[in-house]
Formats: sequence, structure tokens, C-alpha cells
Amino acid sequence: MISSPDNQHLKTIRKLREKRQRERLGLFAVEGEDLVGAARAAGVKPEVVLEAGVDVEPGLLDAVSMLGSGTRVIGVFRQRWAELGGELSVWLEGVSDPGNVGTIIRSAHAFADGPVVLGPGCADPYGPKAVRASMGSVFARPPARAAFAELTGTTVALDAAATRAIASLDIDGPVVLCLGGEREGLGPEARGEATRRAAIPLRAGGPESVNVAMAAAVALYECGTRMAPNG
Amino acid sequence: MISSPDNQHLKTIRKLREKRQRERLGLFAVEGEDLVGAARAAGVKPEVVLEAGVDVEPGLLDAVSMLGSGTRVIGVFRQRWAELGGELSVWLEGVSDPGNVGTIIRSAHAFADGPVVLGPGCADPYGPKAVRASMGSVFARPPARAAFAELTGTTVALDAAATRAIASLDIDGPVVLCLGGEREGLGPEARGEATRRAAIPLRAGGPESVNVAMAAAVALYECGTRMAPNG
Repeated sequence: MISSPDNQHLKTIRKLREKRQRERLGLFAVEGEDLVGAARAAGVKPEVVLEAGVDVEPGLLDAVSMLGSGTRVIGVFRQRWAELGGELSVWLEGVSDPGNVGTIIRSAHAFADGPVVLGPGCADPYGPKAVRASMGSVFARPPARAAFAELTGTTVALDAAATRAIASLDIDGPVVLCLGGEREGLGPEARGEATRRAAIPLRAGGPESVNVAMAAAVALYECGTRMAPNG
Repeated sequence: MISSPDNQHLKTIRKLREKRQRERLGLFAVEGEDLVGAARAAGVKPEVVLEAGVDVEPGLLDAVSMLGSGTRVIGVFRQRWAELGGELSVWLEGVSDPGNVGTIIRSAHAFADGPVVLGPGCADPYGPKAVRASMGSVFARPPARAAFAELTGTTVALDAAATRAIASLDIDGPVVLCLGGEREGLGPEARGEATRRAAIPLRAGGPESVNVAMAAAVALYECGTRMAPNG
């Protein structure tokens, strides 16, 4: 049983709090039985699993935890990145809130067959908040990374100002839903060059927009449900 | 200009960090120009507004801020509670995450004409995280409070195990979408006594559920869009 805070595994877990270190090492850490179980369910093998009282003294595991005391298990996993593809996928630009990135990964796993593709300015999907918000979907459906210009198929820019409602889009062949962060929206390239533009219709007198994770869930549901009979 | 930390307004703002004090005083505090502006846009008058450098020394405002340094304005408002009603509203049970409660208030404002109704075990919609997640929709569309037994109209229990998809529900007259917290789901009363049960269809092999705020957004969108031509 690990009994020293200088243990190499504990040191690695501490390092993985930082995005820079996660990128350098190509690893990430997850806490809790639910998430470690989600990895197992997805057939993803950990690099290391430390269980409190079995592999490591509980106080030492708590000391490297991001969640505080009472951590029962921490697993370290290798980051995986998907290829572009699927009949329905999502491209994000400037979605800087890790909770939103993780939630969208979970929604895409629920409604689509393709990955969440991270464009510029997005939060690290392997950060602790994003992994937790994904509820483990990050294991079953790893994210991808690409610039807008690398996308193929029909790109649909979600834009509150578009006149066409998402429900009335003709869907034919692979679709990539493109969403921008809440403050800035999509950048000029995606806005100008997407194959289509579509809005989620909001009530008059309501807010000008919905949370980007809500917009993604609604658009994924709308397109995923409509495509399901053909897919 | 306020120059003492013992100022009564600053003391009140400090107190309003606690749910117990918010309930006792019937007030809540919001930070930032966006949220104070949302109140103004909704025609809601503040009890107090303190602007840094105008009404109060900036350091003193920072000291009572929940967001940390650089706070430009804090407003104190009276809590408002709506009556039940509308063609489409939402009832929540056990939704204990304030971010989810606030996000659902924003989505209901975007897609429905009725309030978000808080049942037992929900986070305080007037806590700072909920107000921020609502992006100010809490001003335009104050929440309501009720037990399940007080609801009227068609109650629809959202339940991942239901065989009927939400899109195939007959909607006739006022609908209350009922959603439970992620861990526990709806309680036995709502599950047993709701007029209808419906599921949001998820892909085979995907997650067993989506985040409760995503489920609410999708169900509100689905029902709100379908009801719009008649409303």
C-alpha cells in the first residue's frame, strides 16, 4: 500500500490538475466509482487505479483529490481522440466552460453517432469538470479536434438570428452542427462558410439565446430523432 | 459614498449568501451589470443598487462579492414567486444543483409561457449560482413553488423508462412537465399519479439518461414548438 506522498502515481495525479501537464503527458485523472466504472463499461483500461485503503492510504488519496475528503478511487487514463465522422456530430468554437463541454459530450452520446469536435477556444474535455459533466461519456465517445476548414459533410451554423428553424432543415447525408460560445457565438469563418444556418425558435419576449449546452441538446435531439428512422 | 464595511447595505449583501437569510429577509443579491440590466429590462425595481466608485468604495464591494475582485455593481432585489399557470410549465422535484435550476428557468423562459415550479428538494432559485445560470430570466419569469398534488392540467412525468416518446404525446390543454433530480428521479407520488409518462428517446448504447437541464430543454422545446401554432 502506498504510504508516502512522494509516490510517483500520486505525483502524477497532482500534476494532472493542470491542463498543460495533461497535454504534455497525454493523460487525465478521474475520481469516483461512477466514472471509473464508466471507463470499465466502455472497455477503457486505466493506466493506474488507486483505491483508498487497498492501494493507498485514504488520507493520501484525499490529499490529491480535487473533490476533497472521502475519495474512494482515482483512476488515471490515457487521453483518446476520435476521428471526425458519423451521420451527426457537433463542432464547438469558443465554448470555454468545461461543464458545457462535458455536458455536450454526454448529449451527443445520447442523441448522435458522431463525436463532439473541439474547435478553437474550447475548454479541455479532459479537465476534471468536463469529465464529471460528461458522466463518463468521454470514455464511450472520445472527443475529436479540428478547425472549421477540416469539417466535411453539411455544416449547420446554429445562429439565433437565422430565419430557418432547425426543425425545417433538409437533412441529407452527414451533418455537423456548429455552435459557438455564449458571449461571442461562432467566428466569422464558421458563420460565413457553413453550408446552412438554422435557429432554435425561441418565444417572443423570452431570452435572446439559451445556454450553449441547451442549444446543443435541442439541436442534437431534433436532428438525431429525425435521422434515426434512416440510420 | 459608502466607506465603511459596517454599512447596513453591505451587511445585508453579506447575509444574502445564506439561503436561510434569503428566506428570512425575502431578498436576494445579484452581481454584475448583465444581471442588474436584466432586472431593469424586466421592469423589476431593486431595493438597493451599489455601483463601485459611485455608491461604494470598490474594495468594499469586492469584499462582499461572491465572484471576487472587480465587481462593478451589486443589486439587492425582493424575491418574487409566481402563481401556477400557463399552457406549458415545468415542475421539478429533487433538482438540487442550483446551476440546473437556473438553467431550466432560462429554458422555460425561452420555450414556455408558464413558470418553473419548484417541488421538494430543489435548490434555491434565488441563490447566486441559480440566478447567474438563469441569465436574468428569474426576473422576467419568477419561479413558483408547489407540491405535486397542487398541480393542475395534464401532468407529464418525464421518465427514461416510459415507452411513449415525448414527441408522440397528445397535447391538449395546459401541460406540466415533471422532472426529477438525476440521482433519484421523480418520487413515487409524481411517478404514480402523473396523467402521462413520456421519455426522451436516447440512442441504444448511449447513456441511460441525460442531464436534467438537457432533458428539460428538450421536452420544453418539443412541447413548446408543437403548441406554438395554437397558442
